[in-house]
Amino acid sequence: MKKIGNSSIIFDNVYIREKYSICGKLEYEGPYGSFFDSHIDDNYDGEKSFEKCEIKMLKECIDNCIIKLKGLVADSPKIDLMILGDLNNQIAVSNYTMKKYQVPYLGIYSACATFIESLILGSIFIEIKYGFNIMCGSSSHNSTSEKQFRNPNEYGGQKPDYFTLTTTSAGTCILSSIGMVKIACCTIGKVIDFFQDDPSDLPRSMAPACADTIIEHLKDFNVSINEYDLVVTGDLSKNGSKILKEILIEHGIDIYDKHFDCGEQIYDLENQPVYSGGSGAGCIAGMVNAYIIDKLVKCDYKKIMIVGTGALLNPVMSSQKESIPSIGHLIVLERLK
Amino acid sequence: MKKIGNSSIIFDNVYIREKYSICGKLEYEGPYGSFFDSHIDDNYDGEKSFEKCEIKMLKECIDNCIIKLKGLVADSPKIDLMILGDLNNQIAVSNYTMKKYQVPYLGIYSACATFIESLILGSIFIEIKYGFNIMCGSSSHNSTSEKQFRNPNEYGGQKPDYFTLTTTSAGTCILSSIGMVKIACCTIGKVIDFFQDDPSDLPRSMAPACADTIIEHLKDFNVSINEYDLVVTGDLSKNGSKILKEILIEHGIDIYDKHFDCGEQIYDLENQPVYSGGSGAGCIAGMVNAYIIDKLVKCDYKKIMIVGTGALLNPVMSSQKESIPSIGHLIVLERLK
Repeated sequence: MKKIGNSSIIFDNVYIREKYSICGKLEYEGPYGSFFDSHIDDNYDGEKSFEKCEIKMLKECIDNCIIKLKGLVADSPKIDLMILGDLNNQIAVSNYTMKKYQVPYLGIYSACATFIESLILGSIFIEIKYGFNIMCGSSSHNSTSEKQFRNPNEYGGQKPDYFTLTTTSAGTCILSSIGMVKIACCTIGKVIDFFQDDPSDLPRSMAPACADTIIEHLKDFNVSINEYDLVVTGDLSKNGSKILKEILIEHGIDIYDKHFDCGEQIYDLENQPVYSGGSGAGCIAGMVNAYIIDKLVKCDYKKIMIVGTGALLNPVMSSQKESIPSIGHLIVLERLK
Repeated sequence: MKKIGNSSIIFDNVYIREKYSICGKLEYEGPYGSFFDSHIDDNYDGEKSFEKCEIKMLKECIDNCIIKLKGLVADSPKIDLMILGDLNNQIAVSNYTMKKYQVPYLGIYSACATFIESLILGSIFIEIKYGFNIMCGSSSHNSTSEKQFRNPNEYGGQKPDYFTLTTTSAGTCILSSIGMVKIACCTIGKVIDFFQDDPSDLPRSMAPACADTIIEHLKDFNVSINEYDLVVTGDLSKNGSKILKEILIEHGIDIYDKHFDCGEQIYDLENQPVYSGGSGAGCIAGMVNAYIIDKLVKCDYKKIMIVGTGALLNPVMSSQKESIPSIGHLIVLERLK
């Protein structure tokens, strides 16, 4: 493991060993629904509250990740550390989920970039040999998020075209020094303030932060974007993806033919009632574990850049007319030789 | 750097290089007020909202930490990474503070154990040589926290004797491979559920989590508590401290003559209107930077154990009758030889 440039780290020996993803009904009906390991049929899934439903989803991801790994190993695998975070105030879903597991735990938060932050920290903990199996993950639930960040759905507030819908989805993976794909390196993002203060238009805040991290990454490694077969972003949606591509092209970086935004892709934007696309911490966590990793395992892709995009929105600060800070955290996944 | 036991890490070369602390009026009037680098005179400090006041406090800590370091070095010191978190929803104070700094940033959350989590992660980033100067810190503000976790102060709700008051305080320190005291090792805590669901009685939830981490730590290192000159805890207050000591004595660990709880000590419990003591993420962050570190620098103390105690309370989950998960993260500070 080695620091490179201003804000990046090269990893020698970190792999994704197992993964699990789960999604809601709307996401299951979208174009990538069948790639998820499982799905729930309504916003409760038999629980008494939306929050308890999200906790159940995250637990299912964690437990099934371990069960899938059990199929590969003789003994019951020991998880040495869990690194989780989510969109609920006080990352409640992660914290309350962890009641079940007697495992050292670090709670993190960078909004919808949380899953990538968990992979960055998890990779470091693998490299320093803190443990052999480290669980990373994140989740989001449409009904827990919308009422907390904006208004309860029942209010029926009108939404602009550029609005993004919080996805109901979760994803976890187990990092180890062996596995199916390599985590090659990472770049830690900076908070970028684009002086955008509309909580309905988070992609406009996030796109510049995402661009900043990609530019920093290419500078740190002194490589061109041609190194990468695919550039995956978290939840910029249709509008934010357009802004990202325009900013990058101004810097001579062309991702028009290799960009995949999880939020833009998770729904059928023409035929589902989803405005500009999906968002939420579980969007990238679900899509990476359901679909992206397999592009390296089962397809010909060699190297994929993944940028988690977090709008670090707080409703109280928005009411106080403060603009929305955003951040992008980046990792690179590589196919095994 | 080396993993030891189930959940601990030994650090070879991590030091606290500079530190800064700030507190509110009530804390300044308490027995340790004069140890803080600075204080504010009211809950606004000239800002228009409590949140903006807390942001100003955290910025002042960061800026003055850098200014103090400037006095020691020839050039303006470069901060390579910042690791922050606070009690506001979406760790808003940390995130909105970071707008000012063009520095790679990781947001974290473990309630009132956040400062210790930042020191653990910061120490690892120093060891892997991510940077030469890494800023760690946390804050809390009575008026931002009380309205968010319980009720607005103006409601005048009655409080039980065992209630703890969120302190208005913040602390930051710069970690490096040189400095005034050594961060010798850490133990990462697990989430412990004591099936306690009263949000007014957080110490009762936290004490068992704190005890669990101390027991794990002593087991990991195979040492007795006699190794330590002082056992510092975050915000167990008068009641929680009693519970902690009782749990530990049942395990043959006697800390009666060497325990210092920041929340119990920060106020004059006899003469200030503070119920059972102080709490909040800024309590331990402020007190460690204002007072504890200097016990190693200026006094004869050789080795101090510090446990951050976090009640991972979420008001929505409390309304849904869920018990409060808690966690303790531990670091050990050593005097320079």
